[in-house]
Amino acid sequence: MSELRWNPLRMNWVIVVKERGRGPQDYHLERERVTTTSCPFCYGQEAKTTQEVFAIRPEANPSGTSNWKVRVIPNKYPALRIEGDLDKRGVGLYDVMNGVGAHEVIVESPDHGRSMADFSPAEIVDVLKAYRARLLDLRKDPRFRYIIIFKNHGVEAGATIPHPHSQLIAVPITPPVVATKLSVSRDYYHRKERCLMCDMLDQEREEKERLVRDDDHFMVFAPFASSFPFELCIAPRRHSHDFALLGDEELTALAETLKDTLYRLRHVLRDPPYNLVLHNAPPMHLRLGKPSHWGSLPYDYHWHIELVPRLVKTAGFERGTGFHINPTPPEQAARYLREANLPAVL
Amino acid sequence: MSELRWNPLRMNWVIVVKERGRGPQDYHLERERVTTTSCPFCYGQEAKTTQEVFAIRPEANPSGTSNWKVRVIPNKYPALRIEGDLDKRGVGLYDVMNGVGAHEVIVESPDHGRSMADFSPAEIVDVLKAYRARLLDLRKDPRFRYIIIFKNHGVEAGATIPHPHSQLIAVPITPPVVATKLSVSRDYYHRKERCLMCDMLDQEREEKERLVRDDDHFMVFAPFASSFPFELCIAPRRHSHDFALLGDEELTALAETLKDTLYRLRHVLRDPPYNLVLHNAPPMHLRLGKPSHWGSLPYDYHWHIELVPRLVKTAGFERGTGFHINPTPPEQAARYLREANLPAVL
Repeated sequence: MSELRWNPLRMNWVIVVKERGRGPQDYHLERERVTTTSCPFCYGQEAKTTQEVFAIRPEANPSGTSNWKVRVIPNKYPALRIEGDLDKRGVGLYDVMNGVGAHEVIVESPDHGRSMADFSPAEIVDVLKAYRARLLDLRKDPRFRYIIIFKNHGVEAGATIPHPHSQLIAVPITPPVVATKLSVSRDYYHRKERCLMCDMLDQEREEKERLVRDDDHFMVFAPFASSFPFELCIAPRRHSHDFALLGDEELTALAETLKDTLYRLRHVLRDPPYNLVLHNAPPMHLRLGKPSHWGSLPYDYHWHIELVPRLVKTAGFERGTGFHINPTPPEQAARYLREANLPAVL
Repeated sequence: MSELRWNPLRMNWVIVVKERGRGPQDYHLERERVTTTSCPFCYGQEAKTTQEVFAIRPEANPSGTSNWKVRVIPNKYPALRIEGDLDKRGVGLYDVMNGVGAHEVIVESPDHGRSMADFSPAEIVDVLKAYRARLLDLRKDPRFRYIIIFKNHGVEAGATIPHPHSQLIAVPITPPVVATKLSVSRDYYHRKERCLMCDMLDQEREEKERLVRDDDHFMVFAPFASSFPFELCIAPRRHSHDFALLGDEELTALAETLKDTLYRLRHVLRDPPYNLVLHNAPPMHLRLGKPSHWGSLPYDYHWHIELVPRLVKTAGFERGTGFHINPTPPEQAARYLREANLPAVL
């Protein structure tokens, strides 16, 4: 069982893994790691994983066989566990609760050596359908305050298994980054009767210089105050608070946007490591008939995707201040990506 | 000139470097970097650096010669510049100001190949004296809301030059991490008439299991909610809000604590990369006769040092939530460090 522990000075919860706590030798090994020969996410290795919770298969294929396109399994070494209750308690002046939640892996393809930038839009649609299905299922559990879906590509971005996959973590506490985005969006809406992200998209479309792509369905732009070089935001042009409301046609448009964007990043930055994060409204916003934790309708939030290449290291300054130093102005990053002379593979 | 830009969704300022903005090829090069042969921080290379602002020399040696022990110079490629005013302004719905501040490098030793864990306590005292002198000088400038001193050791911790050095950055905005620590400490003091860190030190001393070292002058412990494995906090046992008030004798006690702690980390974790951050009260708290920005006396804050080995990579989950996952319970980390069978070199 892991624990959620409150840091009273930084005002934040930390997930502390208590079983199989890693000792010094585990970190030595990690820094000297060689790639393993057998990958648990490949075809034929299904018995090595936990019990599948969702899959997309070519029609009329039984569950559990190797003939799958996308496959979702609980993480074998979860940061949070689905069983038990929170048991919130104090330890002297500290606060702690049990690490209850969900931690799943979305295996995006049976093909070990490809990455999402290689996928066809149809293959990306299958991954997005898996995201949607897992969100719709897990948001029924009232213990979960937030469900985050993210993808780490490359060792420098935190990927430990090279086989293409995303992860989902459901947490029993609204995370601080999410809480800030929600409250900012709510306050902005209350003051202006407009959505903050909608206003940002309008300004980006008008100023153009931070725009990478705009097909009327989805916009891709380098945020004005990007924390990292070549950071991108992907947002639906039409206001919506919930990714899971996307129909199959809209998923196709998003898949085309993702394919093109990842392909540009790879070409311009030579397959950079990156993190991709889906920022969606929290489950409490989405359960019908329940009052919102945030004291407002869900509809003031605008879901979006953050895509952050990991080209610079964060260090003491970032840890000590919470500020970032970005050595590439977003206007310049957007121009490189927008004007890239792409080999015709799309 | 760099810019400070406000991220309206994350509610945070970002420093965007605008001159010499780095293009894609700069990041290719960085990932393929080979170590350079000539180091600007070594003896005899002083002409390659900017004009020295502080140094500690053996007695009766003129400034500018190679015979120095510690040397402070403005960063040649500063994130923030000392000249100019902030010129705060709006750009559509965004906010921006000029990147005014200070960015200095503290070269800790003329010896390229040693690190602070190799230094004698007397050598560390000289480094701490340089910290103190630069803090006392720069806090006179009313434009600076905060002065942070930090040290990145090892490539994985963000060091780009291996020669032992620390950095100082003075910023015109109170950073969010600092603002949180200040307001939490103030609120705690107002409610309890006691200092939060003092209470934490009492609890750590009583529970013992997260304690690494305690010599009655300084305590070293693994925080209850450590964000990272083997994270440590070093704090003076006696309440004080200002590192710069330390006398030479207290600096010696701190140097002994630092030496022992860094030596333990190196031995147990095989010279891990790490970030060291000095958390001190902000200049506004320290200027006599000025009302505090935080509406309280400075004395409710307790200065401390954060020491964070970089053994795990942060990824999409951390970026998307602000939460951290720590795979080593602090009780276990403290035990490894406390009980380490150190070779007798101290």
